[in-house]
Amino acid sequence: MPYRSPVGDILFSLNAVADLPGMIRQGLAGDLDWDAVSAIVAEAGRFATEEIAPLNRPGDLAGARYENGLVTMPAGFADVYRGWAEAGWNGVSAPVEFGGMGLPHLVNVACTEIWNGASMAFALCPLLTEGAVHALQASGSRELLDRYLAPMISGRWTGTMNLTEPQAGSDLNAVRTRAERAGDGSYRLFGQKIFITYGEHDMVENIVHLVLARLPGAPAGTRGLTLFLTPKFLVNSDGSLGERNDLRCAGIEHKLGIHASPTCVMVYGDAEGAKAWRVGEENRGLAAMFVMMNAARLAVGTQGVAIGERAYQQALSYARERRQGRGMNGGDGMSPIIEHADVQRMLMTMKANVQAARGICCLTGVSLDLADHAHAAGERTAAANRAALLTPIAKAFSTDIGDEATSIGVQVHGGMGFIEETGAAQHMRDSRIAAIYEGANGIHGIDLVSRKLPLANGETVRDEIAGIRRVASDVAGRGGAGFGATAERLAEASDALDESTRLMLDWAAADPYSALAGASPYLRLFGLTLGGACLAKAGLAAEALAEGGDRGELGRVGLARFFAEKLAVAAPGLARAIASGCAPLQSYETILKDSA
Amino acid sequence: MPYRSPVGDILFSLNAVADLPGMIRQGLAGDLDWDAVSAIVAEAGRFATEEIAPLNRPGDLAGARYENGLVTMPAGFADVYRGWAEAGWNGVSAPVEFGGMGLPHLVNVACTEIWNGASMAFALCPLLTEGAVHALQASGSRELLDRYLAPMISGRWTGTMNLTEPQAGSDLNAVRTRAERAGDGSYRLFGQKIFITYGEHDMVENIVHLVLARLPGAPAGTRGLTLFLTPKFLVNSDGSLGERNDLRCAGIEHKLGIHASPTCVMVYGDAEGAKAWRVGEENRGLAAMFVMMNAARLAVGTQGVAIGERAYQQALSYARERRQGRGMNGGDGMSPIIEHADVQRMLMTMKANVQAARGICCLTGVSLDLADHAHAAGERTAAANRAALLTPIAKAFSTDIGDEATSIGVQVHGGMGFIEETGAAQHMRDSRIAAIYEGANGIHGIDLVSRKLPLANGETVRDEIAGIRRVASDVAGRGGAGFGATAERLAEASDALDESTRLMLDWAAADPYSALAGASPYLRLFGLTLGGACLAKAGLAAEALAEGGDRGELGRVGLARFFAEKLAVAAPGLARAIASGCAPLQSYETILKDSA
Repeated sequence: MPYRSPVGDILFSLNAVADLPGMIRQGLAGDLDWDAVSAIVAEAGRFATEEIAPLNRPGDLAGARYENGLVTMPAGFADVYRGWAEAGWNGVSAPVEFGGMGLPHLVNVACTEIWNGASMAFALCPLLTEGAVHALQASGSRELLDRYLAPMISGRWTGTMNLTEPQAGSDLNAVRTRAERAGDGSYRLFGQKIFITYGEHDMVENIVHLVLARLPGAPAGTRGLTLFLTPKFLVNSDGSLGERNDLRCAGIEHKLGIHASPTCVMVYGDAEGAKAWRVGEENRGLAAMFVMMNAARLAVGTQGVAIGERAYQQALSYARERRQGRGMNGGDGMSPIIEHADVQRMLMTMKANVQAARGICCLTGVSLDLADHAHAAGERTAAANRAALLTPIAKAFSTDIGDEATSIGVQVHGGMGFIEETGAAQHMRDSRIAAIYEGANGIHGIDLVSRKLPLANGETVRDEIAGIRRVASDVAGRGGAGFGATAERLAEASDALDESTRLMLDWAAADPYSALAGASPYLRLFGLTLGGACLAKAGLAAEALAEGGDRGELGRVGLARFFAEKLAVAAPGLARAIASGCAPLQSYETILKDSA
Repeated sequence: MPYRSPVGDILFSLNAVADLPGMIRQGLAGDLDWDAVSAIVAEAGRFATEEIAPLNRPGDLAGARYENGLVTMPAGFADVYRGWAEAGWNGVSAPVEFGGMGLPHLVNVACTEIWNGASMAFALCPLLTEGAVHALQASGSRELLDRYLAPMISGRWTGTMNLTEPQAGSDLNAVRTRAERAGDGSYRLFGQKIFITYGEHDMVENIVHLVLARLPGAPAGTRGLTLFLTPKFLVNSDGSLGERNDLRCAGIEHKLGIHASPTCVMVYGDAEGAKAWRVGEENRGLAAMFVMMNAARLAVGTQGVAIGERAYQQALSYARERRQGRGMNGGDGMSPIIEHADVQRMLMTMKANVQAARGICCLTGVSLDLADHAHAAGERTAAANRAALLTPIAKAFSTDIGDEATSIGVQVHGGMGFIEETGAAQHMRDSRIAAIYEGANGIHGIDLVSRKLPLANGETVRDEIAGIRRVASDVAGRGGAGFGATAERLAEASDALDESTRLMLDWAAADPYSALAGASPYLRLFGLTLGGACLAKAGLAAEALAEGGDRGELGRVGLARFFAEKLAVAAPGLARAIASGCAPLQSYETILKDSA
């Protein structure tokens, strides 16, 4: 069975986990109603399933091609991209003022998953454009907005994000690209950036680069970085395109996956310098860029969900068709392998993890909406803090899940999984970047324990844990027998998370090495516990539907149970690992020394 | 720093974990002494480091090439293979009578790791030949042995293993390749086999295929399979090569990894049938093949160790050179990323898991030796049972570790890890097959809980757990402070394993669905616990050396501690997952149903 966008599951998550209807009822979503949301998500799913998904495999095989500074996209990409942009999909969450749809972040999370499930390599292009739009919108001058925003939001032009240089990856202190003042209010850029996603391609007429660079005399480190906009083609005052700017793509990378997404080396200023305009204040470039990075982090988390879902669908389909051995249901001949217990375990692990991660991404999305629109200032602040707390979890947990699910997907296929034409291996290859870019996942662990746990003096995280405990109580109080030991396991996971959180808060000042040593396991623990709560909420909602006569969603109860009893049971062990602190790491030099 | 075979670590494992010196002292290793073992392993390491390892990356890029039935190996492979064979390395554990070195299985485990760490794609060729030699040796007629064994052991000819057909992968009941009696004691084969590793290549003059096929009137299922030998070129009675046999390679697969290893579609009998000779009795082919499959399973487990080690070395080297951010040691500029806690955690996870898996493979190897050579019959039986118990763990745990370590290796490299020229991604791609072939890992879980736990009425597994508990007591009794909470964590893991083992034994007859539902987590739990014991033994040995003045191995104490406190703490959670049995799986149809 070919891939289909998981519209039903996504809508269920928007509804039961993120409570979009509640937001609508409170009047926080403008004139949007649930029927409109359903229609939008369904139509996005239709477009993705029918138009984008078929590009995925040929795009992997052909790859983006580089020649003489130009990048040619695989056949079909440009046409589908244009059709997609013309349908207005590039502007889902963008402001209506500049031609966007102005829909909630939460609906954008849904759409982002849909595009990425169809083709990560395709969807990266608008993902970067969206980030650039966010950054521009937040810090750009009125003139820049008027000139660039509408064509970027319509998708007629695309955007990029230029941070990385060979010596400056996770650490942007080392950025060397320099900007010179041109005297007319504009700037000239000189330098080289690497890993620039869609830095060059042939799907649109112009590409708008946002570039971090250093002005003469700027302070060292990230405090001396300024954000600039520099377009591939200069833009006349009437919006028409002028001459080619002094910037070029010097090559693209040969990567493990997302072959159709050109990862470019960009060179600025071979001659007189790339003409550029400042976005935001001088030396405040990192702050201006962070606006876009946070949105991008959630989007990348959503990629993990998307690719995991795609791998799951393919594995499920294969497991229903492939016959080997005799399964749990017995029978005479060979059984479909889905009847084998271990294959069931693998498929349910994929599905449960993907849906847990989707729930976390949706909670992050709705928090962004409430941060913008909640009635009371206190609610907005709390929601902003919640979004900040959940963003690193949405990013890192979901992308780890993406890697795990795609690898299990290969395993379900057996030997065929290792053969490229099956397609399962492509998902694993494509997925692998998501845990690396937009901040390697380890950095999100650091962000979580160092900057996010202390928010509101720890109240944000305590509220989150209290919310998880409420879900566990709800399951204990009104959940049916199908939940098994979900309430108990979820309560145990909450205890583990609680205990580890206290340790982390204590360590933040007193023992940062221990906090950092436990950061990644802590993020995983948080994801497992919160993810379990998301699934349990969905299960409770399914039971409520069943009481009303619709028993079609009751599988969600069993999924929550599987997650709690088979996966969330890892929580106490993670807490144990965290509690041992930095002591096992401290003599790393001795432990890691070569033994030849 | 380029890759170097981990000779020191391997020798330490042979010594401290598998107690090869004890075997030598008891006179169970012929006239072999420890100095000879050290010299052999060191020389294997030198050859692999200098000759084989440089083939790995170019071999991945060029890949094996198919044209008109012939397979061309990447440049350099044939020359290095011939040099390797001429040095006698193909016959490490083969019988002296046919030109082998007759060394213990344990030394063979060491060498197998060494070849595979240098290049998995290269090492697969002798790995398959060795399997074929084992099967021939065990079941072949004197005439077959005399004609084929010596050139296969010398490496002048290579061997293959033909089980899989499109409809018969994990389930060999469905094998359809048929054999006809030729009337002169020989047979003719007709059929197609897939996934045949090194089924065709240009490194040697002849290739000897072992093929499972079905005789006319044979019973259905695996009880009707007979094993046949069929060579690419017929062999005259004087050992010279005769005419080309009626078999051919019809194509090779485009795979995720091990590109230099040709994975062939083999067609037998386009015309008069491939001339073949029976190996063992009619309809006893599976038993004859199993001899080779068990050896191959341990070898594949060793591949997991090997590729994990290679990825670890590369990640360690990168982490020492790459500078980003300020690490735990502070300083003014950017620190080598090894100074970041999370990078330490990643590197130590790789190293600890790899060494744990190596220990398990070594214990399996020494058990095979004791099964052959122990003085008392009871000891031999116990050792054979132990080897049988440990083989699925050695295979599946080690290859899972290989996948995890190579993926972490990519992560340590950050964005560079996703770029193919770095090489980290190749390790991940190459590694991925090992958890699939020689029985997908899920099948080893089934084997472990269904066939291995009941061995000797459960005494084999109880002895193993008792042995782990002794190590925990030893650490508690005489381990130094550097062990931290190793003894406690190891004891807890043993409790978890003990409890799960009792459940599994109870379930074997009463509730097989629950046993199978927990089989993979149980195998993991076993690997974690036993692996922790292996590291602890190595740590104790290192402390003993330090008492004698050699403090150079004390890092092993810290590695055992890291494993116990950070990784083996997962054991109770796994036991919890196992204990929930099949209930969370039973409604899989409802849970996995599509939601569109």
